[in-house]
Amino acid sequence: MIIELETQHHQNPTPISLKTAILVIGGAEDKVHGKEILHTFWNRAGGSEAVIAIVPSASREPVLIGDRYQKIFEEMGAKYVKVIDIRDRVQGEDPQFQAYIEECTGVFMTGGDQLRLCGLLSDTPLMERIRQRVQQGELTLAGTSAGAAVMGHHMIAGGSSGEAPNRALVDMAMGLGLIPEVIVDQHFHNRNRMARLMSAISGYPERLGIGIDEDTCAMFERDGTMTVIGCGTVTVIDAREMSHTNHHHVTANEPLSLHNLRVHILAYGDGYHLKKQQVIAKLG
Amino acid sequence: MIIELETQHHQNPTPISLKTAILVIGGAEDKVHGKEILHTFWNRAGGSEAVIAIVPSASREPVLIGDRYQKIFEEMGAKYVKVIDIRDRVQGEDPQFQAYIEECTGVFMTGGDQLRLCGLLSDTPLMERIRQRVQQGELTLAGTSAGAAVMGHHMIAGGSSGEAPNRALVDMAMGLGLIPEVIVDQHFHNRNRMARLMSAISGYPERLGIGIDEDTCAMFERDGTMTVIGCGTVTVIDAREMSHTNHHHVTANEPLSLHNLRVHILAYGDGYHLKKQQVIAKLG
Repeated sequence: MIIELETQHHQNPTPISLKTAILVIGGAEDKVHGKEILHTFWNRAGGSEAVIAIVPSASREPVLIGDRYQKIFEEMGAKYVKVIDIRDRVQGEDPQFQAYIEECTGVFMTGGDQLRLCGLLSDTPLMERIRQRVQQGELTLAGTSAGAAVMGHHMIAGGSSGEAPNRALVDMAMGLGLIPEVIVDQHFHNRNRMARLMSAISGYPERLGIGIDEDTCAMFERDGTMTVIGCGTVTVIDAREMSHTNHHHVTANEPLSLHNLRVHILAYGDGYHLKKQQVIAKLG
Repeated sequence: MIIELETQHHQNPTPISLKTAILVIGGAEDKVHGKEILHTFWNRAGGSEAVIAIVPSASREPVLIGDRYQKIFEEMGAKYVKVIDIRDRVQGEDPQFQAYIEECTGVFMTGGDQLRLCGLLSDTPLMERIRQRVQQGELTLAGTSAGAAVMGHHMIAGGSSGEAPNRALVDMAMGLGLIPEVIVDQHFHNRNRMARLMSAISGYPERLGIGIDEDTCAMFERDGTMTVIGCGTVTVIDAREMSHTNHHHVTANEPLSLHNLRVHILAYGDGYHLKKQQVIAKLG
């Protein structure tokens, strides 16, 4: 199939004019009714011309979850949809997978465990090529839940709730660095994760905290803007003007001071300009 | 006992030089070990010269809870401690209670149900006199849990968590207005109440949101400053620079937009200047 696809491509080059983006989804996105977020991904990946790779590696049930997304995007009318079922780091050098990624216009990373996903993918040739093609605007990337968590350079690997912000409330790890300047948290208000994201940000105040609710997507454009779609909110925690924190002076369980945080709760249609650090209110 | 007390007072006038304050406590304050918050109240009420009234009216077990606090303050060495067990609004005109309040240097409002507390106390002569004496710096006032919730002009009567901020997430009512400019929430991070306090503030952005953790106290001084004591944090949500909200344009269950909130997480020793809208970092 890969060969056939490449041949087609060379015989009949139909360069799709893609407006690529990175869709960071807070988990539990609608897969049954309007499917707005998944439809937006499909559309940004080329619609009926889309060649989509599903990466189910975060999940312990990769076949089940891979199949489910494959059917959804096939039903939408994507040109090709293939599950890249990586269960071992050596598969990150698989020539067939690499060839498929060259043809892809969309890559979708499912939920599961973000540490598992990073463990399998980070620094593999396959992941490096995905990153390059995303940066060059050739590929629309989406990740939901664990697939969203891995987007930053720093990643929230786990944690808990029901406490004041403190360093022990969050476990940090290295992410895939696709949007290096952010630290993403997902299932955000649904699982009461404000304090854990603030705890994460206290250690990396130069990063932007992005908390994404379920069935909600922060869509990052190549021009440095982010727009909200879906049913919930995207919370932006901006600590770049933070005047004080005791982060480096307290034990892991002591409550953190965080003075002068800027917080934005963004709903459908609202946006944020990452470089200008400005919120953009929904028009109309 | 009231008569005796008045007589003593007139015979031997020992004007206590009180530095009164309002102590707003997030519930579940230490009653067994160091009792720092309760000890601070006792101290600010005059220490061994303190004449304390306990108002257990928020509770459905006023005798039990009243007794417990009475014993605590008696063991600390207060001069007099009396439970003002108001179970009916007409008791707010009780001459004995009114006479006792004239002698008091400290009033402590227990936890329970803040609607019950307001229903029994608001606009009664007794409550009006307490408010006057607090304003004149003659009386130190404390409230914990429900007793904290009633401090603002607007009050959070109930609500839930696990959702993006939305108007239906919080039930608002009128408080006792002792610190009119704030909206207090308590058991704050312990019960994941950030989204509900933000929801409350979206309707009253000119008020300051104050979220107080358990075993934590926001102590308001008469000079307009607030200082944190205890084991957790005090969260300040300042929406006075809010650039946009959709509060008036969405249904009760739709997620709220709140742009350009200023949020401070304050730990032990940190302070906040209400009029200057400035955070004061703990020294040393």
